[in-house]
Amino acid sequence: MFSQTVEYSLRAVAHLAKVAPAVVSVREMASAIRVPEAYLAKVLQHLADSNIVVTRRGKGGGASLARRTTDLTLLEVVQAVDPIQRIKTCPMGLSSHGAKLCPLHRHLDSALAAMIEAFGNTTLHQIMNDPDPVKPLCEVETERLVELGMPSLPSSAAKGP
Amino acid sequence: MFSQTVEYSLRAVAHLAKVAPAVVSVREMASAIRVPEAYLAKVLQHLADSNIVVTRRGKGGGASLARRTTDLTLLEVVQAVDPIQRIKTCPMGLSSHGAKLCPLHRHLDSALAAMIEAFGNTTLHQIMNDPDPVKPLCEVETERLVELGMPSLPSSAAKGP
Repeated sequence: MFSQTVEYSLRAVAHLAKVAPAVVSVREMASAIRVPEAYLAKVLQHLADSNIVVTRRGKGGGASLARRTTDLTLLEVVQAVDPIQRIKTCPMGLSSHGAKLCPLHRHLDSALAAMIEAFGNTTLHQIMNDPDPVKPLCEVETERLVELGMPSLPSSAAKGP
Repeated sequence: MFSQTVEYSLRAVAHLAKVAPAVVSVREMASAIRVPEAYLAKVLQHLADSNIVVTRRGKGGGASLARRTTDLTLLEVVQAVDPIQRIKTCPMGLSSHGAKLCPLHRHLDSALAAMIEAFGNTTLHQIMNDPDPVKPLCEVETERLVELGMPSLPSSAAKGP
């Protein structure tokens, strides 16, 4: 039900939150979060258009988070790349319904509204600081550290400056 | 967020509920619910595979509802044509997560679970008998009656035998 684009954008934002305030190159991030590089570049462009990430070109360029994780909800990320659209008028175009939805479409719309509300109430900070021992993208750091010949460190120690 | 297939299948089932226990030809239904005929035929096949409609070939053939509307939920219709898939394992394939989801994917999965629950708790009977004056497919009958040169009738009077 969630598109690949939504999944990739959430991974990207979670990764940037993890290393914030570091600027990460698209190539490095693509490898870390297992997303094709060209696809990731497009996702980041959408996120930049919505002021969620800042992208910088050239040497030393890449992307970083544009905002504090406490000010960024899952909903904003989703709506920036593949918006959940509420049902505002009858999809059948029945003119007698006007702006009113029939019970069928009202039910569908309610489910969308509930999803929008749930995502709107969840910040990236909450996701990244959830007490659950399983962390978002938890293996990414470990793999990078192993690649660099370093021992695996707890999440906080591996953060950027 | 809901696919065209989901929208069309719900229209089809609502239409069959409205005229139940009548058998409606695919051509007639396609015109009534504004769905391309070939597309509708495929949707009906999926619904028949899940024992939601019964299809009959040949002259006088078509589709009818296989069950009482009180025994049929929106969820069953959706799952028959374009299933909402829960997130059961890490979409990144992180082996350390195993069967456990990280907080990010747990949040996405919770939203899916809530949608599944809402649709599972809503029967077609509830949708068709909602006290709202705006009825599902309400214009369809009116248009058909006008086509047939008959005056517009209240919903109940237009039902099949």
